Amino acid sequence: MIKPRTPPGIMELLPREQIAFQRMLDVIRRNYERFGFLPVETPVFELSDVLLTKSGGETERQVYFVQSTGALANAASSAEAGSDKSLPEMALRFDLTVPLARYVAEHEHELTFPFRRYQMQRVYRGERAQRGRFREFYQCDVDVIGKDALSIRYDAEVLAVIHAVFSELRIGSFAVQLNNRKLMRGFFEAQDVADPQQQALVLREVDKLDKRGADYVRETLAGPDFGLPAAAVERILAFVEVRSQSHADALAKIDAVLAEAGEGASESLRTGAAELREVLELVKALGVPESAYCLNFSIARGLDYYTGTVYETTLLDHPQIGSICSGGRYEDLASHYTKSRLPGVGISIGLTRLFWQLREAGLIEGIAESSVQAMVALMDEAAMPQSLDIARRLRAGGINTEVQMEPKKIGKQFQYAAKAGIRFVVLAGEDELARGVVAVKDLLREQQFEVARDELASTLQVELEQARAMAR
Amino acid sequence: MIKPRTPPGIMELLPREQIAFQRMLDVIRRNYERFGFLPVETPVFELSDVLLTKSGGETERQVYFVQSTGALANAASSAEAGSDKSLPEMALRFDLTVPLARYVAEHEHELTFPFRRYQMQRVYRGERAQRGRFREFYQCDVDVIGKDALSIRYDAEVLAVIHAVFSELRIGSFAVQLNNRKLMRGFFEAQDVADPQQQALVLREVDKLDKRGADYVRETLAGPDFGLPAAAVERILAFVEVRSQSHADALAKIDAVLAEAGEGASESLRTGAAELREVLELVKALGVPESAYCLNFSIARGLDYYTGTVYETTLLDHPQIGSICSGGRYEDLASHYTKSRLPGVGISIGLTRLFWQLREAGLIEGIAESSVQAMVALMDEAAMPQSLDIARRLRAGGINTEVQMEPKKIGKQFQYAAKAGIRFVVLAGEDELARGVVAVKDLLREQQFEVARDELASTLQVELEQARAMAR
Repeated sequence: MIKPRTPPGIMELLPREQIAFQRMLDVIRRNYERFGFLPVETPVFELSDVLLTKSGGETERQVYFVQSTGALANAASSAEAGSDKSLPEMALRFDLTVPLARYVAEHEHELTFPFRRYQMQRVYRGERAQRGRFREFYQCDVDVIGKDALSIRYDAEVLAVIHAVFSELRIGSFAVQLNNRKLMRGFFEAQDVADPQQQALVLREVDKLDKRGADYVRETLAGPDFGLPAAAVERILAFVEVRSQSHADALAKIDAVLAEAGEGASESLRTGAAELREVLELVKALGVPESAYCLNFSIARGLDYYTGTVYETTLLDHPQIGSICSGGRYEDLASHYTKSRLPGVGISIGLTRLFWQLREAGLIEGIAESSVQAMVALMDEAAMPQSLDIARRLRAGGINTEVQMEPKKIGKQFQYAAKAGIRFVVLAGEDELARGVVAVKDLLREQQFEVARDELASTLQVELEQARAMAR
Repeated sequence: MIKPRTPPGIMELLPREQIAFQRMLDVIRRNYERFGFLPVETPVFELSDVLLTKSGGETERQVYFVQSTGALANAASSAEAGSDKSLPEMALRFDLTVPLARYVAEHEHELTFPFRRYQMQRVYRGERAQRGRFREFYQCDVDVIGKDALSIRYDAEVLAVIHAVFSELRIGSFAVQLNNRKLMRGFFEAQDVADPQQQALVLREVDKLDKRGADYVRETLAGPDFGLPAAAVERILAFVEVRSQSHADALAKIDAVLAEAGEGASESLRTGAAELREVLELVKALGVPESAYCLNFSIARGLDYYTGTVYETTLLDHPQIGSICSGGRYEDLASHYTKSRLPGVGISIGLTRLFWQLREAGLIEGIAESSVQAMVALMDEAAMPQSLDIARRLRAGGINTEVQMEPKKIGKQFQYAAKAGIRFVVLAGEDELARGVVAVKDLLREQQFEVARDELASTLQVELEQARAMAR
């Protein structure tokens, strides 16, 4: 007998939780599609030489390699024979960005640009097992990829997508925090932090402001690693502490940065400011409410990959959760695979981790309700064909319906429905059948009513539609 | 520069195909949920000792093993040190049945039985690369698992699920072919094929009847491997050639088998006949039309796993495609993991292969239409905020909408929409904006109309709803 268990670092859900998770996936997909993004799915494994274009580094250490039984035997015998150890032929994807780059480069001539795709699949990282860290997790990404160039306007659209998704997910009020790395770099240049590599290091430190506080950043930048003059450190801190309070305030904060720089404002600073301003204006035109976005000049995102707009999203009542949706603008998606220049902008939601955090915080609602909406109870054997007919009509009317296939005590059947989160229990005893009606017990409203058999499906539809409308 | 490419044996789709594929997934899921099945997802990899409970055999040879970079290095050094070669710790699932068994056994005390689950995920087999054979493919399964016992009635429900799915998929007329292995075994016993192992071998041969013809089966059973008497072979052939033409005919065919066996009918034959009869009666009560199911006494399914009802499903106009949905009843799901007896019944749709075959046969319809329903054209720069506002209203009205973010020649914009399969192009020039209207070009009906800006979303909704109703 083998003990049934999953590998460590896996989040496996019970059906009721899976329904809640699936609802979140559905909301994200619906909103991605609403903005006109097209679906892409890629295989779970890629050829190792394609996936691991950047040699070494953190990422490669965390990769899972894949070998068929045959390849494994071959590898073992060549190891014994002392021949070269080469990497296994295939590896599991560790994000959706590298597969996107491969996909776009491979199918470049069959795609139309700007190419707007969404992708919602699981990715794999061999991380150290740790509470709340998963080795298999969903990413839900949207990206817009341009050929040669891509208008800054898409940066606004992507922010509107984030707003639409989290509004409909209904997990509390949130704000998309916006910044621009050109603006940051331009500002640092003016503080005599001109070397791009040093800039990147400074960016990484100021990015920690919200987590580790101003004193940490001040000490680090003034300390031996950076050795920046105290005045420069204070100017940098004053800059990265900027948060806007409203749309008008955001525009004013950008103007203030430009005014302070004056005539000497660098190209990078001017471009960054202009980009931020255009994104803000279009975000407003897209109907995103002011409360849902703000400037945060400390946001840099760790990856050097990003070159312009950067986003993070936080739940206002649960800042400890950190960013729940991040992304930004990058210069060139697929330089390893094609000579074409493919700039893009995109975001990613790490849904497995988000779901886990929301569950920890007690924020997963709707979990009480099953995807099964009605159950046809069975009181005696002879009523089976009638039960199946009632179920058939319910299903034809769009109601997800389960039938009790064996007669049990009616109390047990109600208990089962309540425990399973099924709202309606339909009963058709001899008396009801004779009168052409059924009895319905509504476990949500705790009331019972009778309805003509022909009108059962439409009646329950109306009730469910009302509940949906009230939940909005 | 690395050539962007996928591993062999992978089906990767372009966005338009992915939309068609996604629609099929959605139809299957909707119907599984309509019948009250609950969603389950399991991790792509399982621990090797859990997954590979049956040692050796065809299945194990086709398994993909998974190792993190660290585990790989350890394995290499222990191979050099001459230590034991053990299997890698994890492997990719090769079906959804073993993960279901592990899941049910692991979560046994948190689940309610009969446990009705659906699962739609990709599985992995290291098969020889071959046209139309895939190493990664979707399986879409439903199963009902009982504890200790499971009513035969669920066998009827599962057939009704198959009927619902393929009716809504609209890929042509189909029939679920039904048989019962108890009936078959009982019949073979009466022909003096009593040894269970020999019975299994005979089952495997007669299962080839529809593919290889009666002569092949006759010669094999009479030949040296089996050496059955000619009279027995003819009786077996007459039996396995039985196909019913209607519901009444199916019942009559079962009666005929019983009548022929007479007083000497074995327990197995009687039970099989009674089960088949009950399944047929309930399938009818569930409203499945007679044309959608029939008896086929040659269907055995290769796996010894099945013990009662077995199903195959064929497209009537495309028999060469073979079975598009198969399954059956089994005695015990998870004997490797738990002492509880867990009988079940289920079916599986191999959607990747089915999609490939339908595409080859030119049967993928709806592929012409994008998930993007409307495009807001942009004629000049200044109209951008207006365009975004129109898009916002369309999206709020439930219309999937793309916005042109940069002005291009209007002809180019139409071309793009037509190529992308977007039905409605919305135009708002100065004149229209001044009058509070927009112009809509319907690329499907090839007509243009004007509508008040406030009524745009609801107007397009009505048009789309009409198209959906007509498609039904």
